[in-house]
Amino acid sequence: MDLSSLQPRLLLGPGPSPVSDRILAALARPTLGHLDPQFLAVLDDVNEGLRQAFGTRNETTFPISGTGSAGMEAAMVNLLEPGDTAIVGVNGVFGGRLAEVARRLGAEVVQVDAPWGRTLPEEALIEASRAHPEARLLAVVHAETSTGAWQPLAEVGAHLAGMETLFVVDAVTSLGGVPVEVDAHGVDVCYSGTQKCLGVPPGLSPVTFSPRALERIRTRGTPCPSWYLDVSLIAGYLGAERRYHHTAPINLIYALHEALSEVREEGLEQRFQRHLEVGRRLQSELAGRGFTSFTDPEHRLPQLTAVHLPEARDEGPLRRRLLDQFAVEVGGGLGPASGRIWRIGLMGHGARHESVDRLLEAVDHLMRAAA
Amino acid sequence: MDLSSLQPRLLLGPGPSPVSDRILAALARPTLGHLDPQFLAVLDDVNEGLRQAFGTRNETTFPISGTGSAGMEAAMVNLLEPGDTAIVGVNGVFGGRLAEVARRLGAEVVQVDAPWGRTLPEEALIEASRAHPEARLLAVVHAETSTGAWQPLAEVGAHLAGMETLFVVDAVTSLGGVPVEVDAHGVDVCYSGTQKCLGVPPGLSPVTFSPRALERIRTRGTPCPSWYLDVSLIAGYLGAERRYHHTAPINLIYALHEALSEVREEGLEQRFQRHLEVGRRLQSELAGRGFTSFTDPEHRLPQLTAVHLPEARDEGPLRRRLLDQFAVEVGGGLGPASGRIWRIGLMGHGARHESVDRLLEAVDHLMRAAA
Repeated sequence: MDLSSLQPRLLLGPGPSPVSDRILAALARPTLGHLDPQFLAVLDDVNEGLRQAFGTRNETTFPISGTGSAGMEAAMVNLLEPGDTAIVGVNGVFGGRLAEVARRLGAEVVQVDAPWGRTLPEEALIEASRAHPEARLLAVVHAETSTGAWQPLAEVGAHLAGMETLFVVDAVTSLGGVPVEVDAHGVDVCYSGTQKCLGVPPGLSPVTFSPRALERIRTRGTPCPSWYLDVSLIAGYLGAERRYHHTAPINLIYALHEALSEVREEGLEQRFQRHLEVGRRLQSELAGRGFTSFTDPEHRLPQLTAVHLPEARDEGPLRRRLLDQFAVEVGGGLGPASGRIWRIGLMGHGARHESVDRLLEAVDHLMRAAA
Repeated sequence: MDLSSLQPRLLLGPGPSPVSDRILAALARPTLGHLDPQFLAVLDDVNEGLRQAFGTRNETTFPISGTGSAGMEAAMVNLLEPGDTAIVGVNGVFGGRLAEVARRLGAEVVQVDAPWGRTLPEEALIEASRAHPEARLLAVVHAETSTGAWQPLAEVGAHLAGMETLFVVDAVTSLGGVPVEVDAHGVDVCYSGTQKCLGVPPGLSPVTFSPRALERIRTRGTPCPSWYLDVSLIAGYLGAERRYHHTAPINLIYALHEALSEVREEGLEQRFQRHLEVGRRLQSELAGRGFTSFTDPEHRLPQLTAVHLPEARDEGPLRRRLLDQFAVEVGGGLGPASGRIWRIGLMGHGARHESVDRLLEAVDHLMRAAA
């Protein structure tokens, strides 16, 4: 097959999000070596841009060479040792995945559950922390991509500041779309993905580690079981020594550099405001058309909208026609929500009124045809 | 800083190698979703192209979403459990890394050593295998990027065919440059990188798993400690079910697709011949200028030439001037070879007589200036 035959789509699913021409052009810049001083300057710039996006002064802030799931694994594999207790909030696929990753590393997982579509009560997380003061970490998902739930973090962060337990936050779908306040909320390890609200093709996972997290890593009793994701080794490449660890994904890092320039030019606050306005408009327009929220209305993310279809219509065929006839991609449900919902992302460059207009026009057409 | 200020380099180091305009253009195609039928067709094509490059009919052949080092980790983390014996050949950095990855996973490592720059005697590997019939795997590096040594595999492969021990081969720097005969040599797991002889930007690691390797994975007593690299989970996305695991690095996969089209158009044999001719010419020209081989002359890779400089000249400043004044990148030595050698890659699009001409002209200029 020929790549030139591929039809572009408007990406309004749960990620990847649309990539701007400017970022695609950056991606296609000539490849440099990973030890070339020119490239190292690009990487330093990227890391500084990520600090701003994460709201942190953590020195150890950089893109992991893998997707958001690699960032999740990096957080857990660096912090946990067999027998450690890990408190994990589970209210969707990604919380469940955090728990699974921790179990595979030999941790005792204390699971705090909430129904899909709802957030985890902060008091329940704090209670679990009080019951398990020995816990190595407490992990929650800030923006649950499987449900659209927007998890509050402030009280848990304030509580954990006085504990040994480290605070781990999954910001895959939140970074660049809604405020992620790593330092203000006392988050020790936070990871994200580039293909959501930053608008970069998938393949990188921005992460940040606090000094407290690094101290924990330094005092491990066993080496990190993953050589590839071992932050103490990667730090040797990021730091002044520039020690070779693995070959950085040069061109994706160009693309991330360009995206962070876009973020700086737009301004983080304006960017959050744009995501909020456009997402809330979509949610209101869909409600007017009989779509009902899958997510607790009090905690809906603006950038990821999970909805039931009107009159319990079968979502799969409509979603496929949206893709085939209108070239608009939205996502279906995962796990227990499979076949029951649409997940609509308005992330990064997708968070524009034109996206909402085009989606609604197509939806109206399909609904009339199906009526 | 502005990416447009970056000066292009001729990449003649140990990787990344030069990327063709055609592949850069493929990289910049509009991003599609990882579950879009159009993208899944691209991925299927890529996997078939990789089968041809690897010389295998293994169904489970695909690009891992990380660099070559992630492929190494995927091989080991899927096959090994704590307490397993792993025989590892070590004659350079990457063999040493294999041993380290195995140790971190709790394996008992039986190390077969050879001096840097030499290959591992196949009889020594076979002897270690006879002494450790319980070994879960035997791993060697086909093309040792740190030394330029070209490891023979045929006798070890034939020996292991009658054993329970699985044969793992690191083909990071060999795939697409010299023959990699996975099925013919009875290799069970082979991994590579895209940024060497395939000429794709870094960020993907092609891997292949034999049915025997998959059976081993199926019968593990403990889950694979890495969720991200768990081949049994990734197979759910590759197969008919198309189960979401993680978001594939879409645009890098476009680039790999284009590279595999280039390979097909050129023909694998012609591609090997090109690497051989150009590499041997460089080696001969350098010998005529007083550079001496770091690598055992009987086992030099054509695509990666490791040499001492004439008259024990200090390599660092000359290498830096090559980069700054001539925009040509070559690599220095790693580990015990640090400061002692140059590593010159003629890989993928870099394996051309024009590369040799440009390098030699610059070298001659620098040597005259330093004389």
